[in-house]
Amino acid sequence: MNVYLDNSATTRVRDEVINEIIDVFKKNYGNPSSLHRMGFEVEKKVKNARVIISKFLNVNENEIFFTSGGTESNNIAVQGIINKLKRRGNHIVTTKIEHPSIMNIFKYYELNGFEVTYLDTNEFGLINLEQLEKCITENTILAAIMMVNNENGTIQPIDEIRKIIKAKNRNTKIHVDGIQAFGKLKVDLKKLGIDSFSFSGHKFHAPKGVGGLYLSNNINIEPVVYGAGQESGKRAGTENVPGIVGMGKAVEILHKNFKNEIDHVSEIKQYFIDAVKSNITDIRFNSYIDENCAPHVVNVSFLGTKAEVLLHYLENYNIFISTGSACSSRDKSVSKILLAMGLKEKEIEGAIRFSFSHYNNKEEVDYVVDKLKICISEIRKIMKR
Amino acid sequence: MNVYLDNSATTRVRDEVINEIIDVFKKNYGNPSSLHRMGFEVEKKVKNARVIISKFLNVNENEIFFTSGGTESNNIAVQGIINKLKRRGNHIVTTKIEHPSIMNIFKYYELNGFEVTYLDTNEFGLINLEQLEKCITENTILAAIMMVNNENGTIQPIDEIRKIIKAKNRNTKIHVDGIQAFGKLKVDLKKLGIDSFSFSGHKFHAPKGVGGLYLSNNINIEPVVYGAGQESGKRAGTENVPGIVGMGKAVEILHKNFKNEIDHVSEIKQYFIDAVKSNITDIRFNSYIDENCAPHVVNVSFLGTKAEVLLHYLENYNIFISTGSACSSRDKSVSKILLAMGLKEKEIEGAIRFSFSHYNNKEEVDYVVDKLKICISEIRKIMKR
Repeated sequence: MNVYLDNSATTRVRDEVINEIIDVFKKNYGNPSSLHRMGFEVEKKVKNARVIISKFLNVNENEIFFTSGGTESNNIAVQGIINKLKRRGNHIVTTKIEHPSIMNIFKYYELNGFEVTYLDTNEFGLINLEQLEKCITENTILAAIMMVNNENGTIQPIDEIRKIIKAKNRNTKIHVDGIQAFGKLKVDLKKLGIDSFSFSGHKFHAPKGVGGLYLSNNINIEPVVYGAGQESGKRAGTENVPGIVGMGKAVEILHKNFKNEIDHVSEIKQYFIDAVKSNITDIRFNSYIDENCAPHVVNVSFLGTKAEVLLHYLENYNIFISTGSACSSRDKSVSKILLAMGLKEKEIEGAIRFSFSHYNNKEEVDYVVDKLKICISEIRKIMKR
Repeated sequence: MNVYLDNSATTRVRDEVINEIIDVFKKNYGNPSSLHRMGFEVEKKVKNARVIISKFLNVNENEIFFTSGGTESNNIAVQGIINKLKRRGNHIVTTKIEHPSIMNIFKYYELNGFEVTYLDTNEFGLINLEQLEKCITENTILAAIMMVNNENGTIQPIDEIRKIIKAKNRNTKIHVDGIQAFGKLKVDLKKLGIDSFSFSGHKFHAPKGVGGLYLSNNINIEPVVYGAGQESGKRAGTENVPGIVGMGKAVEILHKNFKNEIDHVSEIKQYFIDAVKSNITDIRFNSYIDENCAPHVVNVSFLGTKAEVLLHYLENYNIFISTGSACSSRDKSVSKILLAMGLKEKEIEGAIRFSFSHYNNKEEVDYVVDKLKICISEIRKIMKR
């Protein structure tokens, strides 16, 4: 049995998406900027994907921009807003538990003279709303706060956060990294009232190399790259047509089956949590086991083990999981995110992220928990020596 | 019959490339940054593509970086070099006939206090080497000069250009937009001695949404986007694995069959040129009909016609061509590139770019020339009224 529980790192592309992409490769290979019919047909397909995604997020079609992925989306929004507004103020806000594609932008601006507030969180990664309220001043041009943490699934209360920020300074723009939230939580951006929101296709069964960005009609940005004016000048470069069309298809399916798929994922995750609790001792859940956590992730510390060792034990059984986020996993030190949440080093040392998709089932969970039990017992024996 | 002669805008993806991509979607959907086997297997495939491309360009493997396409590659190189070197000088050089993904970066820096030299060209788009020689000073940090023009195929003498620039200021960096050259000309970057070189997959039968950049080990750049450090920090973001692997396959095939495919394209183009000459009067070739032009492009003015009208007449016969470059084609004014070369307005008005690939054959050319004759005669009749 092959069990893939690393769906926060990346997901398997849906078969229907693959078929759609093959179709584009074979029939619709025109350039959407070309003036002839082959161009227009392709442009129509790109537009169709834009409509599908705008409906899913409840925004206007012209507020969705296609990019090469989540990192680029975060950069276009954050750099774009800061560069546009830098004459108005030099204070920017984020949290201590952001993904590197937010964190490293803030570090860059900090090095370049901006004042940055990095918000603290509690031990599960929820930010401190009082600290947020206090830090916003008339000088604050941007706050970037993720919707779902990529290491433990904690959901920030974006609605409250927006109210707090806009009450203190209605000109402060709010960017939300939605990369781990898209397709996992119901997101109504019109209701949420934030200024920008990023997502990445390969996190929801569309291909790698394509993503998107919601940019409210109310805001203006400086582009990060310059070119021939595609995506209304917000993101130049020939459109990744197969990727965009594939992502549109993935969202179409997701939108149709949203409740079913999420209910299924939630059930599988809960089944896993219960099984781990009853079969393995000396554990600590580093995620909320309630509605404060996204339905597809749970982070667990198996005390007295080393996560990386456990990872390799499990892959011998064809079980694939992560220690922390994939993006940072080649960085050998302990998870900076869990450290920022205040976990103890020995808790972080044995911390594993299990992330599920609708493809997973209970049989797989039984298999995983069985192997977990064996591996953990072996590792603990060795580590006690 | 369906005849696609818009291969400078974009190309049909090779079937072997499609098969490779499907394979990645179905079997190798891991994240190359993941620590487990599914991650490593994917990382190996990305590395393999890097090796293939570095061999094709004769550079070191660690000098090739994957991007989302040509526009991003040009931006990473040009912005990256300028931002790194801006304390050393504020003079930058380019030509009047660059693609918007170069031109608009230079306009941005010009607006932000840089002194820019836009080099003139002759009526076929060859730059003036004396003007180049004169303009380089100790203040010149970068020159960006395209290898093959996207509207008429003219090849700049990059080897001479490099010698002239480096003789005047050996610290001036040279970026070459190689997007229309890659896969059409034999490019030996080690011999050429330039500092960076961009290319785009969808111009050589790989997918849209993936491209690459050669960055010499001798230079350093400031990144354009910040993130989790992929591509040695030069281009953060989860790698577009299917695109990269597909592009690697496309280059592998191209490398193997290079001479055959280029000979075939050259022959088809010459056959087309001869047929146009003997069948249609009042024409002007806006491309060199010799080794100064890339093998796959020819730009012709059909005097007394309007190119856009001709384009639509031809698409009724399922013939697909361009007026100027796709990227700028939605910009209704006449081609700025041909204008910069010094063509008269009436020549530009009737200018069509025919761009061929190894998929084209003589039967298609016969069909196209036959229809061209009919359409041009009709349009000329109408325009004379």
